[in-house]
Amino acid sequence: MRRSIATVCLSGTLEDKLAAAAAAGFDGVEIFENDLVVSPHSPAEIGRRCADLGLSVDLYQPFRDFEAVPPDVLAANLRRAERKFDVMEQLGADTMLVCSSVSPDAVDDDDLAAEQLRLLAERAGARGLRIAYEALAWGRFVDTYDHSWRIVRRGDHPALGVCLDSFHVLSRGTDLAAIRTIPGEKIFFLQLADAPRLHMDVLQWSRHHRLFPGQGAFDLTTFLGHVLSTGYAGPLSLEVFNDVFRQSDPWRAAVDAMRSVLLLEEDRLPPAPALTGHAFTELEVSGPELAEALSAMGFTHAGQHRTKPVQLWRQGGARVLLNEGSGQISALAVESADPAASQARAAALHSPALTDVSLPGVAAPDGTAVFFCGNGWLEDFPATGAPEDAGAGITGTDHVSLTQPFDNFDEAALFYRSVLGLQPELPTEFAAPFGLVRSRAVSNAARDVRISLNVALLRRGGWAPGVPEPQHLAFTSEDVLASARQMHERGAPLLRIPDNYYDDLDARLAPPPELLAALRKYSVLYDRDEGGEFLHFYTRVLGSRVFFEVVQRIGNYAGYGAANAPVRMAAHRRLRLAGG
Amino acid sequence: MRRSIATVCLSGTLEDKLAAAAAAGFDGVEIFENDLVVSPHSPAEIGRRCADLGLSVDLYQPFRDFEAVPPDVLAANLRRAERKFDVMEQLGADTMLVCSSVSPDAVDDDDLAAEQLRLLAERAGARGLRIAYEALAWGRFVDTYDHSWRIVRRGDHPALGVCLDSFHVLSRGTDLAAIRTIPGEKIFFLQLADAPRLHMDVLQWSRHHRLFPGQGAFDLTTFLGHVLSTGYAGPLSLEVFNDVFRQSDPWRAAVDAMRSVLLLEEDRLPPAPALTGHAFTELEVSGPELAEALSAMGFTHAGQHRTKPVQLWRQGGARVLLNEGSGQISALAVESADPAASQARAAALHSPALTDVSLPGVAAPDGTAVFFCGNGWLEDFPATGAPEDAGAGITGTDHVSLTQPFDNFDEAALFYRSVLGLQPELPTEFAAPFGLVRSRAVSNAARDVRISLNVALLRRGGWAPGVPEPQHLAFTSEDVLASARQMHERGAPLLRIPDNYYDDLDARLAPPPELLAALRKYSVLYDRDEGGEFLHFYTRVLGSRVFFEVVQRIGNYAGYGAANAPVRMAAHRRLRLAGG
Repeated sequence: MRRSIATVCLSGTLEDKLAAAAAAGFDGVEIFENDLVVSPHSPAEIGRRCADLGLSVDLYQPFRDFEAVPPDVLAANLRRAERKFDVMEQLGADTMLVCSSVSPDAVDDDDLAAEQLRLLAERAGARGLRIAYEALAWGRFVDTYDHSWRIVRRGDHPALGVCLDSFHVLSRGTDLAAIRTIPGEKIFFLQLADAPRLHMDVLQWSRHHRLFPGQGAFDLTTFLGHVLSTGYAGPLSLEVFNDVFRQSDPWRAAVDAMRSVLLLEEDRLPPAPALTGHAFTELEVSGPELAEALSAMGFTHAGQHRTKPVQLWRQGGARVLLNEGSGQISALAVESADPAASQARAAALHSPALTDVSLPGVAAPDGTAVFFCGNGWLEDFPATGAPEDAGAGITGTDHVSLTQPFDNFDEAALFYRSVLGLQPELPTEFAAPFGLVRSRAVSNAARDVRISLNVALLRRGGWAPGVPEPQHLAFTSEDVLASARQMHERGAPLLRIPDNYYDDLDARLAPPPELLAALRKYSVLYDRDEGGEFLHFYTRVLGSRVFFEVVQRIGNYAGYGAANAPVRMAAHRRLRLAGG
Repeated sequence: MRRSIATVCLSGTLEDKLAAAAAAGFDGVEIFENDLVVSPHSPAEIGRRCADLGLSVDLYQPFRDFEAVPPDVLAANLRRAERKFDVMEQLGADTMLVCSSVSPDAVDDDDLAAEQLRLLAERAGARGLRIAYEALAWGRFVDTYDHSWRIVRRGDHPALGVCLDSFHVLSRGTDLAAIRTIPGEKIFFLQLADAPRLHMDVLQWSRHHRLFPGQGAFDLTTFLGHVLSTGYAGPLSLEVFNDVFRQSDPWRAAVDAMRSVLLLEEDRLPPAPALTGHAFTELEVSGPELAEALSAMGFTHAGQHRTKPVQLWRQGGARVLLNEGSGQISALAVESADPAASQARAAALHSPALTDVSLPGVAAPDGTAVFFCGNGWLEDFPATGAPEDAGAGITGTDHVSLTQPFDNFDEAALFYRSVLGLQPELPTEFAAPFGLVRSRAVSNAARDVRISLNVALLRRGGWAPGVPEPQHLAFTSEDVLASARQMHERGAPLLRIPDNYYDDLDARLAPPPELLAALRKYSVLYDRDEGGEFLHFYTRVLGSRVFFEVVQRIGNYAGYGAANAPVRMAAHRRLRLAGG
């Protein structure tokens, strides 16, 4: 039999994956959409590369949430499918995987599902393509292979068949006998995966994933209130089973733990003064690259520290300090209504005060200095007299993004929550080209202080790029497309985003054509949530690990463009490999 | 309120944990039984150390599977409890945590549970101790806090109360209102843990834990048989979402993947010749330590390689080669019914053949050489003429234990399964002092070839000791106590097991007193399963990473003493820290 492998099985860029699959003797590949989207090569180029390597493109996947929907959703889904058929034609892939729907738009109606899948198969068949329908084990209405086969049989079209995936079949424990009733030519594709028997239950949750109070999602304050109301006078005791804590420095973990219980008795702590914005971010630089980039982005070297070799760069409300050093974000400073009180709270929470500095501040878990600024700090930076640049539309700082040491991710979230009084947002997880990444932001209620924390889900080894991961500083603009255009014209080192991203964006979210064209022209990325829209673009990595982002939030977009992060990571990685 | 922390929250030895908790300002600790069991310090010494550090011992835990059992089990459980009360008295702990039962011996009878817990509380109260009963979220019959409170109220004894653990309460989503109905003085203990909201379901299983065919527990051969019977003629395609593979070298992963599909078409592979035992194990040594240890263990330096500086050491059927090098297990050799055919199968499975060696062999994923030996290999080792040592009862090789590189654990299991035709046993997981460890053995049907593979659950960082982890070679003895006594007398560098282990063993398994005394005297460990018993002892780590074990299997004991591995690891770690 011919042997294929899905690109999602392997680490690296799409080019790495194809080369590795060919070298191991595979006959074909399944191209996973995200691998293509982050690639700088067009589908036709990838198709040619596969042919050169002796690989057929056996499947394009996944196409989600298609069937059993109202007419308007169906129309949008068919449009989306046609865009993907375009991609498949260029790739030379003849079969598309359609997963059973998990969408809230779908209804429980096998006849409707069959009718709509038949429609999709007609469109596919007209282009010489086929639809392989797969029952996800967690599909909303269709979650067993025999159910998917009943729908395919009812759809009754030569370009419509089933895809059998051993995981989805065997994880459900469904009887296998019905497989024998499917004509072989209607099994369009066979995917194989093994898995350990796992009992993914509350016991596993308890044994591996507990956290110190304030690091997770439990409402422990209410819980504790109930217990204390009984007159309980024994100790508050932490009992936390956590895979990471089990292998990390116990002295640090114990301080983290103590911080968590101190925070539970919040009323006994000095209150957290209000924070009103990012005062500045300090970067350590070892060459001219960052200053040149800031200049090309419209920043002015406005001030120079009285005694230290520290430059103040400014544009709108965004302030960056450049210091000599090893090329990282060395400090973030927040505007505090009462810096001394902020410092007192930090001390009460066992955070190490910084010494030898003129501002009150503490060290964050990753070693970044966190300063509390009042009004006067700018007085340390007499004007350079440099003419004020007209700028490129940057108005302030949106967020600082810091990749955390593997052992200190939850510690960092608790540090910012307790010491600075910020609120942790919901964690997210996404698949980056070299492994999964977990991300969590902390912010204040006004959302003018935002810090994004990131960590690899598994500590990286020799193959996947590990420490130091890039860090970045995101500025705000009220017209990000104009800012991008101006910065392009000024020669800022902006990051180029591949065309595949925009083709996929068109298929997924269908932005107006003129907006899509502008996004594509200036390598601006786009995201959308219930609250609004998000436009953003990036620079290259400057020096060893810092880059800049410029963002525009339209409406109440709450996130940080995590869906686009893998595209950015792949682009940065490519430049690094190319020595760029 | 007083603040406590369970030792299980922190990494390291019990001494590390106590020092870290005190340094962070905690008032007390919960001592987790396993931390004490692996400690060389007596409970009284630990109690004094806590007092010196200003820590109270607020809880001793866990005591499992006590209540609602038949009379004979109750009697054994009360005996076990009295042993633990002895420990608590020495520690200065006044409260014991009793978790709701998960035992198949328990019955669903609240009256019986209350009556037996009252009995336990009477025994505890007579010694000035208290019982805190906690409902595990996965308890067999008692899994909510209000249920545990109803039983405690019914038990109605001053030394009986509940323990509330926020994880068990909040993970179940139980209404909190009933907490207010519990008198505060009947809440004996409060444990706090936070947790992320996790949906530990088939989707997570699918997205993070898939494996290549043959690495997991699915019966893919049967599944594939069903599919092929339909006439399906498309490709076999692998689709595996796996956190580790996502960040490991794709060229290696692709070869691993190819091996997995080749194994699915077993009938097209050269068959795996029968293996009949371990021929030899080769150790690279850089000093006299290993040779001296073998000598003290009763081995004879029986042969010397014709051309290479390789020594053959022998006792009974156990054969060890010592070569010059960096202090690790460099090769394992199995007796094959047809070495050339073994080699042909390995080649068909894309395993790199070894070159520059006189025996057929391949490199395992961790770099260890695997040789296939026929009858003639001993001819390369002419006798030294050294007088044959009378020995110390070693009869052969039981298993070779190899800690795998983090990225290659599943690859290694598949390598031994496919290339050598061994069968993977069920994986186990245990908590070692510096993090969780996953372990899986592969063996032949006759069980005269066994290889144990181990890996840290998370790649270790700076704090927890990481690479290189120790490797070891386990010999068999038909009277392990006699072997241990003889080796002691001959001055072999045996590993000393702390008394706490034997006190716990007595409480848990109650071996006959004379056996217990002998085990304790010679630092022999003990385990038991449905099939039989296991007695085993260890040497210190010799050189940089190798140690020896001597084991005796009584009846059909199937395991490798994993329950005792943390005791061994802590003892080795102590010696390493002490420079021993």
